[in-house]
Amino acid sequence: MQSYELNKTDVTRLKSALTGSDNQLAVILDEYHASEIAILFESLTKEDRQRIINLLPVEIASEIISEMHEEAHPEELLLQLHPDKRTEIVEELDYDDATDIISQLEEHEQKEILGDLSEDDASHIRNLLSYDEDTAGGLMNTEFIRIHLHLTKKDAIDEIIRQSEEIEEFYTIFVIDHNNIFQGIVSLKDIIKAKGNVQITELVKSDVAWVSPDTDQEEVARLISQYNITSIPVLDQQMRLLGRVTFDDVIDVLEDENTEDILKISGVSEDEELSGNWVEAVKSRLPWLIINLGTAFLASAVVRYFEPTIAKIAVLSAYMTIIAGMGGNAATQALAVTVRRISLYDLTDNQAYRTVLKEFTVGLINGAVTGLIVFIFALVFDNNPLLGVVIFLAMTGNLLIAGVTGAGIPLILKRVGIDPAIASSIIITTFTDVFGFLLLLGLASKLLL
Amino acid sequence: MQSYELNKTDVTRLKSALTGSDNQLAVILDEYHASEIAILFESLTKEDRQRIINLLPVEIASEIISEMHEEAHPEELLLQLHPDKRTEIVEELDYDDATDIISQLEEHEQKEILGDLSEDDASHIRNLLSYDEDTAGGLMNTEFIRIHLHLTKKDAIDEIIRQSEEIEEFYTIFVIDHNNIFQGIVSLKDIIKAKGNVQITELVKSDVAWVSPDTDQEEVARLISQYNITSIPVLDQQMRLLGRVTFDDVIDVLEDENTEDILKISGVSEDEELSGNWVEAVKSRLPWLIINLGTAFLASAVVRYFEPTIAKIAVLSAYMTIIAGMGGNAATQALAVTVRRISLYDLTDNQAYRTVLKEFTVGLINGAVTGLIVFIFALVFDNNPLLGVVIFLAMTGNLLIAGVTGAGIPLILKRVGIDPAIASSIIITTFTDVFGFLLLLGLASKLLL
Repeated sequence: MQSYELNKTDVTRLKSALTGSDNQLAVILDEYHASEIAILFESLTKEDRQRIINLLPVEIASEIISEMHEEAHPEELLLQLHPDKRTEIVEELDYDDATDIISQLEEHEQKEILGDLSEDDASHIRNLLSYDEDTAGGLMNTEFIRIHLHLTKKDAIDEIIRQSEEIEEFYTIFVIDHNNIFQGIVSLKDIIKAKGNVQITELVKSDVAWVSPDTDQEEVARLISQYNITSIPVLDQQMRLLGRVTFDDVIDVLEDENTEDILKISGVSEDEELSGNWVEAVKSRLPWLIINLGTAFLASAVVRYFEPTIAKIAVLSAYMTIIAGMGGNAATQALAVTVRRISLYDLTDNQAYRTVLKEFTVGLINGAVTGLIVFIFALVFDNNPLLGVVIFLAMTGNLLIAGVTGAGIPLILKRVGIDPAIASSIIITTFTDVFGFLLLLGLASKLLL
Repeated sequence: MQSYELNKTDVTRLKSALTGSDNQLAVILDEYHASEIAILFESLTKEDRQRIINLLPVEIASEIISEMHEEAHPEELLLQLHPDKRTEIVEELDYDDATDIISQLEEHEQKEILGDLSEDDASHIRNLLSYDEDTAGGLMNTEFIRIHLHLTKKDAIDEIIRQSEEIEEFYTIFVIDHNNIFQGIVSLKDIIKAKGNVQITELVKSDVAWVSPDTDQEEVARLISQYNITSIPVLDQQMRLLGRVTFDDVIDVLEDENTEDILKISGVSEDEELSGNWVEAVKSRLPWLIINLGTAFLASAVVRYFEPTIAKIAVLSAYMTIIAGMGGNAATQALAVTVRRISLYDLTDNQAYRTVLKEFTVGLINGAVTGLIVFIFALVFDNNPLLGVVIFLAMTGNLLIAGVTGAGIPLILKRVGIDPAIASSIIITTFTDVFGFLLLLGLASKLLL
């Protein structure tokens, strides 16, 4: 029983136990939950992981492997094991977990592992491998408790007990008819509470949310979250029950989607593994930086155009950095609020319009306030009120544009069906650079020369 | 039964039904789940929301109010209702939901609502109001199924059925002893499956995760996610059972925490409501922009120092914008990956060190590649190889610093106990501006003058 986070002491203990005998190691391992060992694995070598998996009973070994984070590469650990041990573990895994892990392997490795399994297990997993991993089909588990609509209370309880020998965790009991057509759900509690030996048909709740195997995982998460349900049935076009997605899968989906959002908005490819090596990181980020370079040339073209002005009033280049930096940051603020809002809610056209209007106002005010500070600075340090006015106007105008583009561009992208998070800071800051320089240098050329 | 998203048609239908009689409206409303009506409410006026709440039975009305998003301000709707209706609804709400809503009101409004409740309900809610809303105490529900350790199977089932009259949804049955000391959990399935009239003490699972009322909500979410459990018990210092936090609360917490992360990293106060008005947005963002202005003056001081160089080679100012923009974006990339990684995993010192080393390498390579492109540009357009070399070196150096600070600063903040997301792009980009300009203008002064 513990409510503490694993810490360095646990890692140190486990590592020192690894220098001892198998028996001593087993005593230490016994103190941890499988999901805790999965976390401790991140600090261990491949050899130590392998030794622990071989030492533990297959139920615990398979649970550790299923709990290992994708980035810790459980599939590599699986490949290192003796084929017999590997088969034992894969057969112990839930089909959906086995599929997730096996899907990360090369095709010939997949074939090898599936070839060692019973035909039944192999065909279940082969079937699940055929679904896109970002859909309900890719998330679903095909083991669940299902009972027949016309069972009586007593027979239903016997049937549930029988099926639960195989399926350890269940939250909802699915009800089907003779043709395996989904009829609804029933809770064990309601069956127990029912007076007399009633039929399930009198207890079934048919008005429930469901999804297709190709429903996007974000939509699955939204439905589970909206209806506060522990699992959602996955049905084919004939309304036959294919599987269920559970709340714990959805929690993982939410973490992943949020990682993707934060990466995309920062101009990092959504596929970059957080703990990946530098090769992956370069591949993921360099294309975005090259796009940024293209847009930066655009901003620098504006500066070039006004080169004669800068040559005469070199101090302008010091103010340019301020205008560009402030515009970029104000745009990032508006972008973050808008992208996050779009990802949580569907906005009507009217709400979208009012969002842009709001950011216009915010940009105007924030621009005027910070512009005023820079105006005073120009007055005091450069003793040049007209320069101050130019900077004040450029700052206000630039923050206004920052707000409108930071909110407007993701909203437009959403409308035309492009992921709004792609309007990353890289794209948005180009607008503020170009307009900021145009304003500052254009006004300076008119008013100061 | 539906798997579709609510869309504009639903809003239009409901709005047109609102022009008709109460009876017609009730027919339309009957087609929607309470959580769907809660979403449709976002498009309705205060008066229409009030009319619908008054029209519906109290069970559904209270469910709608509990499902309304915090930003749709269910507490304001509650205040508008007739006191009798309001009391009915509050008494129907789960204590944790009632507490969440009431906590948003002014103290005198809270008193008024609590004064109308039964003493029992009022004291439950008053107790929950005393916990910080970001802790297990603030999230927990105080209604749950608890049975005594020494009950027999038969008596336990009767007791569970009796308690479940009051508590509609339960996932786990908590087991306590005579002094209300928590002993563990048991599932209804295991009780049903047990052979003979055994005592609960033989079925109880005592090795389970639990939290204290002051455990931070992020830690609660982490535990529920790690152990894949539907609910977690909240215990006081004497191990007495105070309440439970359920998976659906955790899903909401994850959404909120992720909004906070994305806002903080973009330099927006975490308290800014996504759909808030411009006044709130200015209050939330202006302080960050003023901090940014302070750091921007720092960068511009570097530029000023090199003013004579710029006056002689004005084209440098065009390259300055490229170097600064690229540095800022590379830093944002490194920052996003690192902040997200810190928020999902605990990094050891060694992992932290290797992260910085990785970002050093990534910065070096990305800097060299993009630096080379700009070098070629300088060669072709400005016909100045030495200028190209200066820019190549400045770009490489700046992206290297961007990587090291983008990863290093949040890691250091985490070590000293400050929220790493506060190392927002606003702070990080100052480093790249200052160092980028120092490099570019310093090298230019040495090599080109």
